[in-house]
Amino acid sequence: MQNIPYKIYLTEEEMPKKWYNVRARMKELPAPITHPGTGQPCTAEDLKPIFCDDLIAQELNVTDEYIDIPEEIQGFYKMYRPSPLIRAYSLEKKLGTPAKIYYKFEGTNTSGSHKLNSAAAQVYYAKKQGITTLTTETGAGQWGTALSMACGYFDVDLTVYMVKVSSEQKPYRKGVIETYGAKVVPSPSDTTEVGRKILAQNPGTGGSLGCAISEAIEMAVKTPNCRYVLGSVLNHVVLHQSIIGMEVKTACEKYDIEPDIIIGCAGGGSNFGGFISPFIGDKIAGKSNVRFIVAEPVSCPSMTRGKYAFDFGDTGQTTPLLKMYTLGSGFIPSPNHAGGLRYHGMSPIVSKLFHDGYLEAVAYEQKSVFEAAVMFARCEGTLPAPESSHAIRAAMDEALKCKESGEAKTIIFNLSGTGYFDLAAYMDYNEGKMSDYVPTDADLEKGFASLPNI
Amino acid sequence: MQNIPYKIYLTEEEMPKKWYNVRARMKELPAPITHPGTGQPCTAEDLKPIFCDDLIAQELNVTDEYIDIPEEIQGFYKMYRPSPLIRAYSLEKKLGTPAKIYYKFEGTNTSGSHKLNSAAAQVYYAKKQGITTLTTETGAGQWGTALSMACGYFDVDLTVYMVKVSSEQKPYRKGVIETYGAKVVPSPSDTTEVGRKILAQNPGTGGSLGCAISEAIEMAVKTPNCRYVLGSVLNHVVLHQSIIGMEVKTACEKYDIEPDIIIGCAGGGSNFGGFISPFIGDKIAGKSNVRFIVAEPVSCPSMTRGKYAFDFGDTGQTTPLLKMYTLGSGFIPSPNHAGGLRYHGMSPIVSKLFHDGYLEAVAYEQKSVFEAAVMFARCEGTLPAPESSHAIRAAMDEALKCKESGEAKTIIFNLSGTGYFDLAAYMDYNEGKMSDYVPTDADLEKGFASLPNI
Repeated sequence: MQNIPYKIYLTEEEMPKKWYNVRARMKELPAPITHPGTGQPCTAEDLKPIFCDDLIAQELNVTDEYIDIPEEIQGFYKMYRPSPLIRAYSLEKKLGTPAKIYYKFEGTNTSGSHKLNSAAAQVYYAKKQGITTLTTETGAGQWGTALSMACGYFDVDLTVYMVKVSSEQKPYRKGVIETYGAKVVPSPSDTTEVGRKILAQNPGTGGSLGCAISEAIEMAVKTPNCRYVLGSVLNHVVLHQSIIGMEVKTACEKYDIEPDIIIGCAGGGSNFGGFISPFIGDKIAGKSNVRFIVAEPVSCPSMTRGKYAFDFGDTGQTTPLLKMYTLGSGFIPSPNHAGGLRYHGMSPIVSKLFHDGYLEAVAYEQKSVFEAAVMFARCEGTLPAPESSHAIRAAMDEALKCKESGEAKTIIFNLSGTGYFDLAAYMDYNEGKMSDYVPTDADLEKGFASLPNI
Repeated sequence: MQNIPYKIYLTEEEMPKKWYNVRARMKELPAPITHPGTGQPCTAEDLKPIFCDDLIAQELNVTDEYIDIPEEIQGFYKMYRPSPLIRAYSLEKKLGTPAKIYYKFEGTNTSGSHKLNSAAAQVYYAKKQGITTLTTETGAGQWGTALSMACGYFDVDLTVYMVKVSSEQKPYRKGVIETYGAKVVPSPSDTTEVGRKILAQNPGTGGSLGCAISEAIEMAVKTPNCRYVLGSVLNHVVLHQSIIGMEVKTACEKYDIEPDIIIGCAGGGSNFGGFISPFIGDKIAGKSNVRFIVAEPVSCPSMTRGKYAFDFGDTGQTTPLLKMYTLGSGFIPSPNHAGGLRYHGMSPIVSKLFHDGYLEAVAYEQKSVFEAAVMFARCEGTLPAPESSHAIRAAMDEALKCKESGEAKTIIFNLSGTGYFDLAAYMDYNEGKMSDYVPTDADLEKGFASLPNI
């Protein structure tokens, strides 16, 4: 065994050349993407008007355990990967725990998060297919930023439908997306039929993610050589994000690190799903006994209080149906600053693994998450994203249990992004203005009432 | 020779354990820090009420070529260093140049720049001396952020006097500083005599860096166990920043990279001075023939149009005198977005090296700098700080000369920070609202008129 450095960077030769497709290992597969009209599984043909061909193939691929990362994408990854796996010595000391805490830090690129891992892949496949324009939606803006970076690099046009109120509250997110050459359209807009309809009904609306998705999909379907791309939830996104887990696994094998607990936060499930994929593969194969913990907000508790059911991916109910843990597409999340975790559903892969007992889920209130975030920032330097701080909270809680029991467990969590664009939330916390919110059963029932009958 | 990776990270064992003090190699030394009243060199005793003892010793040390980095500071550096030395393959391709372009990327920490290298050192030495409170000023906010991170880690109280107009225009900078546990006081304030005086004279003022410095120094002098710290210009800051150059030099030696041209931007000169220090040492010793280029804005041209003279470090004319290239402490910089390069003077070390012919200086107009910044962002992924983009512009220009001449020169520049908090400037550029500004000779004469008679 080699000495374990403070920060582990894989060498170029050690960088994973393949993504890990955990579905090939699962004893039972997630239910297929289903057509809401027919109730039948969607075919590749059904999805072609919206998504790129290679991405559809990856979405439906349940047999290949490893999928080659094309050289062009490896080249893009080299600009900002490998991301470091860091031992949180200062945090351990502060907590007084015998636990060994490691974190994988995905925030070292300008988009500030793991989102770039899938953005690069999706834009590459679009370009390869001869697609000249992509569309997407963005709320908090991390996905839009990542996609604009990839489109700037591969020279593909991009239109981002940005929830109007977000584009007004976060003008700098719009600024960075435009700097990379993409077009930002505040949604609802007059550029689409659905946008014009919503504007006519409600001229003063600040928009919603559901509406922005509908506009982006409409543009993709109606524009020549144009497709729609999505930053989370879907199987191919989890596949691309497996680069995170593959790097961590390679590092663990190189330095004989044996994780006891693996932790991530989840909104749509892409960073968590990608992070755990190769490790879950080993667990299913009976080769490891790691515990997996997914951390979510109490205010949007899809795993801890949701139903495992077929549901739409968007609030506008325009997408195919996904079987997942969901609060119902009609669930209205509270004003929760952890923007990226405000999604009503969850990756079908992560949902199925949870349903089958491979994962534990925990939910945290916001103030307790920010308490962990601030302690982490002061100990470890990096200001974490509020989303990622749910994972920090969970890792700290497990480390404190080790302090009580005296066990020196190895904990690895994914620090999926930085909080540089979340300072309004930190300021609320610093000034004591932050409040917690727990949905009532009645709140949840309203969301469940929106579930489709299938 | 080993294969050169795309991004070079030194291993922990290869990390420099010493800073490089270039003054020990200089054939003629910079003029000493001078007392404005007596015209005599300041003694350590003169500086003790303001600065920490070990930092004063480093400030005055002109004999030791290498100075040990204390283990505690090495420990802090390990949290975010080594920074990568990256080959700009995509930029080279875009320019069609045979030149090999490398950049050292100092923006991978939350403060977003190299400032943390000196912040960590200064706070450590303060703590070691038993100092419990530090004060400083901040304009754009990068220094204040870096210092708050170091103070949060070493558990030292910090009060940051932040230019009032900046604290209002950049509330998030205030937010991040407070998250790390420091106190932000918009300046001028009623917490100091000088602040109260300025407020009485001009109740509506938005403040200035000169005023903020004066308030911070007053607090340091009047508060028990308190000292003042500064993020640029001074010799000990350049010393701490030599970690940048030491890492680059180690990487070059490991991979047989022989730079022909080394480039950095300069405001107060700390990143440039630290970056070039060990390389200049070799050049003075006759061991290399590298060209050194310092890039500055046309709007604040201290090197290209300034005078080499004794001057105050602050517009309030309260500091000791430094011999440096200066526009005069009374020079009023234009509204220039590259905030960090708006300083009227320049590090005495960098100034002396320039005066003695070791360096070339170039000045760029703002729009040409942002053109380079946007091209860099789209090719290389990272959104650069406007300050650092002056170095990008210079590197691109040298690479384009290589294209004409067909020479495959090796160019290394320092990407001293990220532009994540400079998006207002990028948006102005994107929207065609940015203008260039060239000071007239009359503008410069007004500044020179403020030079002291010594």
